[in-house]
Parts: sequence; C-alpha cells; structure tokens
Amino acid sequence: MFDKIIPRSEDYAKWYTQVIRQAEMADYAPVRGCMVIRPYGYALWENVKEQLDTRFKETGHQNAAFPLFIPMSFIEKEAEHVEGFKPELAVVTHGGGKKLEEPLVVRPTSETIIGYMYSQWIQSYRDLPVLINQWANVVRWELRPRLFLRTMEFFWQEGHTAHATHEEAEEETLSILDLYADFAINEAAIPVIRGRKSESEKFPGALTSYTIEAMMGDKRALQSGTSHDLGQNFAKAFDIQYLDANQKQQHCWTTSWGVSTRMIGAIIMTHGDDQGLVLPPRLAPTQLVIVPIVPKNNDSDKQAVMQAVDGICETLGSVRYHVDDRHDHSPGWRFNEWELKGVPLRIEIGPRDLSKQQIVLARRDIPGKEGKTFVPIDNAAETVKQMLDTIQADMLKRAIDFRDTNTFKPTTYDAFKEVIENGFAHARWCGDAACEEQVREETQATIRCLPMDQPGGDGITGRSGRFHTEQCAAYGTQIVAGAVPGRGGSDVNGIPVYDTVAEGIAATGADTSLIFVPARFNAADSVMEAAEAGVELIVCISEHIPVLDMVKAKAFLQGKSTRLIGPNCPGVITPGECKIGVMPEFAYTPGNVGIVSRSGTLTYEAAYQLKRLGIGQSTCVGIGGDPVIGDKLC
Amino acid sequence: MFDKIIPRSEDYAKWYTQVIRQAEMADYAPVRGCMVIRPYGYALWENVKEQLDTRFKETGHQNAAFPLFIPMSFIEKEAEHVEGFKPELAVVTHGGGKKLEEPLVVRPTSETIIGYMYSQWIQSYRDLPVLINQWANVVRWELRPRLFLRTMEFFWQEGHTAHATHEEAEEETLSILDLYADFAINEAAIPVIRGRKSESEKFPGALTSYTIEAMMGDKRALQSGTSHDLGQNFAKAFDIQYLDANQKQQHCWTTSWGVSTRMIGAIIMTHGDDQGLVLPPRLAPTQLVIVPIVPKNNDSDKQAVMQAVDGICETLGSVRYHVDDRHDHSPGWRFNEWELKGVPLRIEIGPRDLSKQQIVLARRDIPGKEGKTFVPIDNAAETVKQMLDTIQADMLKRAIDFRDTNTFKPTTYDAFKEVIENGFAHARWCGDAACEEQVREETQATIRCLPMDQPGGDGITGRSGRFHTEQCAAYGTQIVAGAVPGRGGSDVNGIPVYDTVAEGIAATGADTSLIFVPARFNAADSVMEAAEAGVELIVCISEHIPVLDMVKAKAFLQGKSTRLIGPNCPGVITPGECKIGVMPEFAYTPGNVGIVSRSGTLTYEAAYQLKRLGIGQSTCVGIGGDPVIGDKLC
Repeated sequence: MFDKIIPRSEDYAKWYTQVIRQAEMADYAPVRGCMVIRPYGYALWENVKEQLDTRFKETGHQNAAFPLFIPMSFIEKEAEHVEGFKPELAVVTHGGGKKLEEPLVVRPTSETIIGYMYSQWIQSYRDLPVLINQWANVVRWELRPRLFLRTMEFFWQEGHTAHATHEEAEEETLSILDLYADFAINEAAIPVIRGRKSESEKFPGALTSYTIEAMMGDKRALQSGTSHDLGQNFAKAFDIQYLDANQKQQHCWTTSWGVSTRMIGAIIMTHGDDQGLVLPPRLAPTQLVIVPIVPKNNDSDKQAVMQAVDGICETLGSVRYHVDDRHDHSPGWRFNEWELKGVPLRIEIGPRDLSKQQIVLARRDIPGKEGKTFVPIDNAAETVKQMLDTIQADMLKRAIDFRDTNTFKPTTYDAFKEVIENGFAHARWCGDAACEEQVREETQATIRCLPMDQPGGDGITGRSGRFHTEQCAAYGTQIVAGAVPGRGGSDVNGIPVYDTVAEGIAATGADTSLIFVPARFNAADSVMEAAEAGVELIVCISEHIPVLDMVKAKAFLQGKSTRLIGPNCPGVITPGECKIGVMPEFAYTPGNVGIVSRSGTLTYEAAYQLKRLGIGQSTCVGIGGDPVIGDKLC
Repeated sequence: MFDKIIPRSEDYAKWYTQVIRQAEMADYAPVRGCMVIRPYGYALWENVKEQLDTRFKETGHQNAAFPLFIPMSFIEKEAEHVEGFKPELAVVTHGGGKKLEEPLVVRPTSETIIGYMYSQWIQSYRDLPVLINQWANVVRWELRPRLFLRTMEFFWQEGHTAHATHEEAEEETLSILDLYADFAINEAAIPVIRGRKSESEKFPGALTSYTIEAMMGDKRALQSGTSHDLGQNFAKAFDIQYLDANQKQQHCWTTSWGVSTRMIGAIIMTHGDDQGLVLPPRLAPTQLVIVPIVPKNNDSDKQAVMQAVDGICETLGSVRYHVDDRHDHSPGWRFNEWELKGVPLRIEIGPRDLSKQQIVLARRDIPGKEGKTFVPIDNAAETVKQMLDTIQADMLKRAIDFRDTNTFKPTTYDAFKEVIENGFAHARWCGDAACEEQVREETQATIRCLPMDQPGGDGITGRSGRFHTEQCAAYGTQIVAGAVPGRGGSDVNGIPVYDTVAEGIAATGADTSLIFVPARFNAADSVMEAAEAGVELIVCISEHIPVLDMVKAKAFLQGKSTRLIGPNCPGVITPGECKIGVMPEFAYTPGNVGIVSRSGTLTYEAAYQLKRLGIGQSTCVGIGGDPVIGDKLC
C-alpha cells in the first residue's frame, strides 16, 4: 500500500511532498497551484483553528465574514499595497454571462475591503477599538506551488483591528505576536523566534511588520505568522475616522495579522522524520492508536484481547484515540501506517501481554525499541495521558536543541557566508537596505527578522523597569544594583548596572531580585539566573510568561533555598517600610492585617478598603494569577 | 440611535432588511450582490455551524477543503449541471498578470471538482463509503440580492458522499434530510416540511432532490436545506469507479446536500416581530441580558444592585449572558436595543426589586407586560434555564400554529387560486410538468415539495409494517386490525384496515397498538392517536422521533391508563406465545427468565446467549434507547 518515502537527507522537498500525499493530508488539485486538504489534514487544521480561535475570543476578538471579491479600485488606493499585490492577483472579468464594468479581484488579503467597511461603521471614539477576525480563503497567484507552504488558494485567519491611538495599535500588534508565539510553542511544539521584519520584507502598506520564524528540518527558516502595525496608512486611504472626546475628527490606527494553513507545513517540517509525520499530541487528530494483535483462528484469545482493549478505551476520557482492529493486516503493516500518519502514541496488546497484565507503549517521537516501554494494563489511561504530555514537552525540547545547534553567531562576513549554508546566522546588521540587498544577492540569505529576544532587553534599564525602580527606591527600598546583559558598567540614577545577577551580588551582597524583564525576552531565564546566583527572594512582575517556560524554571528552583513570588504579580509591600513591586502606594497604610492574593488589582482594592476603614496592613503579597507560580496560597 | 423599524404588515421586505442592518447582523458590501456578515450575525452562524457539524461528525462524516476554482471544462461535463449553472457563473480570466488559457469558474457548488478527486481516491469497494463535507463560500451571480437569502457569495456546507449501491446512496440522502429537519425543528424552532422536489425544481444533475421547506412570517415558503440523490450521473461524468468484491469495475452512486447562511434568514423571518429579531435560545449568541437599573448618584444602591448581579452571574454556568451596565443609557433605551437584537430573555433588577429579593424576567417572545414575571432572586439561574427551555418550545409551537393556520387544503383550482394568496396550499398535483408550469404562470405558485408526511404513510400498509405484521401473526399474535388514514376499507393479508385507530377498536375490540409509522410521518402523533382511542398498550417501534415531539406525546399520556413501550425499541415478546415487535424469533425460547433492556440488539443477544446455555425466557421487553420513552427501567 505505501511506497517507500525518500529520506530527508536525499531530497528534502520530495520527502515533504511524499509524506503529505501518502499520509493523506493533502493532494494537488486539477487546477494548477491549488490544493485539496483531505480529511486527515483538515482535522489537524481544525485543531489549529480551535486553539487560535479560543485565544482570539479570550482576548476580546469577534469573528465576521467579508466578501471574497474586492473592486480593483480598492486595491489601488494604498500605493505600497497595490505594488506588492498586483502581480499576484486573480481577476474576475465576467459574471452572470456578461463582461463586468469594473473587474473584481479575488481577495489576496482584506485590508482594503475591511477598511472600507470600518469607515462606514466607525463614527465615534465610543466605537473603538474594533477587534474583528475572519477565517477565510485567499488567493495569490503562485507558479511554483508547494502543498501547505505556497498554494494559489490558501486558508487563514486575518485579524483586522482599529484603535484610537498608535500606542493601542502597537500594543495589539505585539500582543497578537505573543499570542501566535504562545500557540506555536505550547501547542505546535515549534520554538519560534519573535522579531521585526526589515523594511524590504514588511507587509505592503504596513508601518512595521512582526513575525514568528521557525527553523524547519532542512535548517531553513519558515515564516509562520505575521502581525502588522499599519499605522494610519489604510485609515487615510479608506477614510476610517472617528470623532474624539473633544468632538474632533481623527484617523484611526489599524493593525492586521494572520496565520495560515502554512502552519501545517511548519508542523510537518519541524517534527517529521524519515518514517513520516510526527504530530504534537496537543494538535494531533488522533493522539493514540490501539493495535490489538491476535493470533489467527484463536477466537478465545481474540475475545480476551478485544475485551481488554474495550476496558482501556472506557477509561481514556478525552484522549483522541482510534482502535485499529484490521486483523487481516499484519501488526507491522498497521504500525507503519500509523507511524506514517504521525500518531504520537501507540498501544500494542496481544495474548502474551495480557497474560502478564501489561501493554506495550510505543512513542512515535522515539522510533524503534528505545521508544517502547511495557507498562501495567491497570491505570493505562493515566500512563497514556502522562506520556502524551511528556512527548509534547520532549518534541519542543528536541526542536529547540535542533535550532540552537544549527544557529551560529558569526562575527565576520566570511564566517557568515560559511555558516549560512548550514543553518541560522544570528548576526549584526548595519540597518542599510543596500547592504541587505547585497548580502541577499551574494549569499541568497534574507533577514528573517530582527529578534525581540535581544541581549540586554528591558530590565532596570527599560522604561517600566526604570520607573518602578525609582518608585521603590523613593518608598525606602534599598536598591543596590541592576543586572542587564551588555549594560554592565552603566548606571540608572546612580544605581550601578552589572552584566549578570551573579556579578551584582558579588559586588553588593544583594539578597533579593526584582524582575521586570518582559516575557518575550525570556523572563523565565531571568528567574533561573537569579536563583542560580543565589538570591533569597525573587519577585517576578513579568506577565505572559509561557507556561512551559515556567514549568522549567520552577523545576530549576526545586531544592534551592530561593523563594519565588510571581510571575504576573504586583509584588510585595510592607507599608511605610519597603516595596518590591509595582503596587500603587496610596492604597496602603501600616497596620497589622496581612494580605495574600492571586489578583493584583484585588490586592490593592482590599488594602484600600481596609485603609478607608482605618485598618492598616503589615505585609501584602500578590502571588500572581498564572497557572505556574512560585509561592502559593496553599 | 435606532431608527424606527417599519411594521411587517406595511412592507415585509423592508422590515427584513431594516431589522438585519439595525441589529448589526449584516450589511451590504461595496461589491454589488455581496454581503458582510457582522460579528453578531456571524456568532449566530457559528452556533448553526456547530450544531450541524456535530451532527455530521456523529454520523461518520469528515470535513475537508476543495479548491475555490473549477476549470470551465469540468462544469461542462454533466449536461444538466452546466445548463443549470452556466448563467450564474463568475469567471476568472486573468491571473498573475496574464490571460489564462482556460478560464476558471469560481465554484457555484462542488460536485464536479469533488467528483474528479473522488475518481482519483476511490479504487476498491473497501474505500467506500466516502463521507465528506466542506464548509465553504460559493458564488452564484445574483442581480436582485437580499441579505442572507440571495447573495452573490454565500456560505454553506456541502456534503458529498460516494457509495457502492443506490440503496446506500438513497439512505444517505434521506438520513441527511432527517438530520436537517431535526436541526431546524429542535435548534432553530422552525417547523420544516420534508419533501421531494418536482422534476422542474430539482438540482441540475440530480436524480432526485429532497428539501426542507418552511413558512416565513409573510406566509411564503423558504427552501432551507436540500439533499440530492445524484444517482450515477456525476460518477459517470467523472469516472468514479470501484472494483467490487468480484473484481468487477462499477460506477459509484453519489449524493450531495447543503445548508447555507440562508438559514439565518429563515430564523429571522420565522420568529421576528415588529420590535426586531426574536432568536431561539438554543442558537442565540446571547441567551440572557441582565440590565441593572440604578438610580443616579446613589452609590450604595448601585453597589448593592451590581453585587446582586454578580451573584446571579456566578451561578449561570453555561448560559450565554451579557450584563448591560451602560448606566448612562436609560433602561428603556437598553431594553429596546436587546429587543431589537432578539435576545430571548432579559433580567431587570433595581433597588426596589432587591428589597423584595426578586428580579424581573422579561421574555422576548412575548412582548410587553404579558411576558414579564417577578421571580425570587434565589435560584434565579435555575429559573432562567427553565425559562429558556420554555421559550424554545413555545417558539416552535407558535411557528407550527402559524404555519398550520395558514395552510389550506383546497379541493378545486378556484379555491387553490384564492388560498394561495394567503399561505400554503396542500393540494393534489397530477404529476404533469405542463400542468405545473401552467399553474406557475397563472398564479406564480410553485411546487415547493411533494411532502413526505403524506396521509396514509407507512403503517401496516407500508413495506416494513406489512412484513413485521405477517411475522407477528405467524408467531401466534392475534392481529385484528390495521389503521392507516385514507386506507380504510382495504386489507393486508385479510387483516382489515381502518382509517383511524378509534374505528379499528370500535370494530374489533383491539387493546394493543403496534406502531411502525416512520418518524417523518409524525410517529408521535400516532402514539397520541392510539392513546386517545383508549388502547391499553402501545408498542412504538419507530426510530428518530424528534425529542420535542415525544415530550409532547408523553405529556399527552399523563393521567391516561395507556402504557407505552418505546419508541425506538424492538418491542415485546413472550417466547412461543406472542410477539409484538420486530425481534428475530430464533433468539428466543420459552422459560422463566425475564429481560428488560434499553438496547435492541443487546436484548436479542442476551436472550440468545441464555438460549445457548439452555435457559429460556418468560417475557422480554426492549424499552428503547431514546431520551424520552414510555416505560422506563427505574
């Protein structure tokens, strides 16, 4: 039934297409450049959609549907936009048997038509923000199609938002970028790099484009999602205006952002191996396949095995499983099929296993014998659930290792040219477009992004960090040092800054670390760095740290004497004495009631209500509302 | 903020458009004939989708995605198909800046391209059936667009299945029709009529088209979903063949079926009133709006009311609710908005209510004072949930009454011409297309469908009924009469048939009724008819009776001495003596073990296993597995 798949090392592009077609994920359509997504591929896409859609709705976005057809004149209204998209357009010239007066473009993206509708709907600042997404098909003419990666028609979601200020639009753009990264890392097990696009690579019509970039199995980059700050470009082209609180007409600030079926390609190429697909458990249409192995012509053995299988199935709850009882096919044949299809976990069970009250668990991500374990049939469901979590975590770890192993930091152009053949180069760019173009011509290398996880991010030297450090110091807290990589030797209002926490402690004897590092700069790493350096107390204010990062950090803290408050918390305050955090001071007054709370705002509120009743506080601790935090309530 | 909506009686079409636009369901797009579905309308569509999609998946269908573009030559392959669709096509002639060699059609429906793919995928009888659905946008050129009802681009699902035999394809076609009707009746509260299309109205290329038809508020019909038996027409045009078990090539039998965003229009027009939308609770994006009414400048009252609101919200669980705390708008203004938007239930709560520990519940389906009740604030959530169920049931009942009141049974052409101006005519048609055409020309009336709920459906005179009656009689059961409307005076193998159960009892003294009437012929009505006629025992074999129908029938039985077994059950057997049902006789043998079971097959299986062990049975009763049945296990 299956043809042999070519090894990745021999022909990666061919491997990719063969895997997709043999696993029945997708097929080429009889229309050049178009694809058919088959049920198995579509089930994966449905899981991707569900995860993203839930995140969109949780952050206040709503779905809608805008037309497939856009008048040609709309596309032409934004100068960069038309220049970028005109060569890729499919054009309808005839409809209902007649030639159209104005040709219609099949949407390549919907900024223009949605911009027009927003100009009709938005009147006042009260109508803002508008936060709308649509799940849609789009068409961009494509001569060298590749399934899921580049097809003439593809499926995506495109978010389009309108805001009163540029600041809000920027915040939306970046928070969606974080949402995408969170999805990619925690659901698809793809360790994406968040970054900004260079001018030459940005979306036609955008002020700034942000991207998540991932390294595929061939060590090449794949852009896996983008988020654009459109400034007022489309608002001016389509006259999206609002009356502000002072009765003045203002242009809106808009954003757009999208993730497409290309994400399926990213999953295939990040995790696939020479046996076929390897799907991350959290997105896999089938997470577990159960293969009963029964001898021919032995009905009582068969009945016993199938009864045991039924028993396991009854306990599996929400696990997405499938029982492959095609007894006329050999076990090996069936194993091959499910390996090709990338099902994360397989249970094998035969009469001999049954006599030992055990089953075989075979992990897809570790092929062969190494991935097999014998586990008791009792409690199999619990073992399966834990194993799926382990596989998910290991797949991410493996992808991180692969990327990091194949990412180089060349310091000369010659070194750059050499390493770029074999992976990513993390290198400095002067910022000159001509230079970018020259490098592209000479090496075919493109700037994938200017990463946000830059060394020396946004600790004490950043805007928030600096502000709150000043506030704490003014409240009486003894701030003796800051630590920001690459900023060693500088100072913030007289407070010396060191490259590392360890250096800061060595020089000043500090015992507490207050962390402001934004999530996108690996705030969890900062927690581990501070613990490693031996501080007694860490207060981590940073929000949006990916759960899996915190799981790692928390495991790292185990056995150490360091105590962690947060993340995503307001910190600790002893009113009138010391504040290590970001809480508003007016809410607190000294006294003898202690407050511990998961909610930041409620901590202030509780303190403030006590204060108004004349009751002061001893110490108030906001321990943070994230799923994984340091000190807990109980 | 809101313009006055024109009353339905003045201009129904205008009312329809005004309601949709003011409730922000949808808007016309700047492309002629296209619409934009706004978030509120789209949320309703998402609920429709979810309900249908769940039903598709439960019945073994999978989703996939096929291309938007279809080569013109494909459309031309099936003769009737091209004739039907050619005038409605949108055609892409240019792509990527060049004129195309073969123009591409933007899909008006996908039988052709999916047929082509099936011909590639299907090889053997083992590959069948193929049961695939896609959620997609389609384009049919439209010069007189109406939001949701007729737009150039619209959204739908199109199911496409391939089978080995015509019987299986027919069964699929009809079971999908039942699925659609179940959705329409039980979720959308639209009492649709299931029926077959006449030749002139059927889908271009189909052998037989089935439809669900509903009466709108203007007493006109709306086709709300269709299911087509395509015979081998597309299989032959696209060469969809399989190798049968005897190694012979055979053409497949295919079906297609669809429900579109027109369903939204059906919901609006079935239930809407002069105040705006009235949405059925099971589909409404917001089921409950809570409007706190607080006096200006009274902070403590405000705080108390909002606290009570929070308390209610915490207990609402899965109810989709919204708190409208726009205190700067008057209560009346807010009430109007949510009435316009058709939210099924409203809670009003102010300081005076609070002092009485009560809230006001206002039903959207009963406007004004009659729809308002004061209920205790304690247990409000439970009251809300019950009220939502009541509203759902009442909306369906109201729609049934409206349809039945406006459905006439003219017996002459003159009477037909008169009544057709004011509703549906349920009338005989000779079957001649020329006659159909003449009536259309003279009266503008079209044959919506040949209803399946015909008088004299499929009781004892039907295929199954006749067969099982014979089996029962042969087993020793005394069958004395049959009852089928319109068949009075005839007989089945010597058993006299009466028009009604009551007539049968009067003539023969029968005390038991065995019901075979298929669900689509209102089997629940048959249960009530038998109970009304005074039989002691009803055994109802019929499956797929809508739950709400059974709720009605069960309520009808209350207080009566009639005992009901089933529906959806195998019946009752006393082995060797009497069988009232459809169970296989070989499985049973006389003895002293009694069996009562919900599952039909398990009843046989249990009896048969006992028999093999030499243990006989006294009486075995299959009570049926439906949610609402007569006699229960406990």
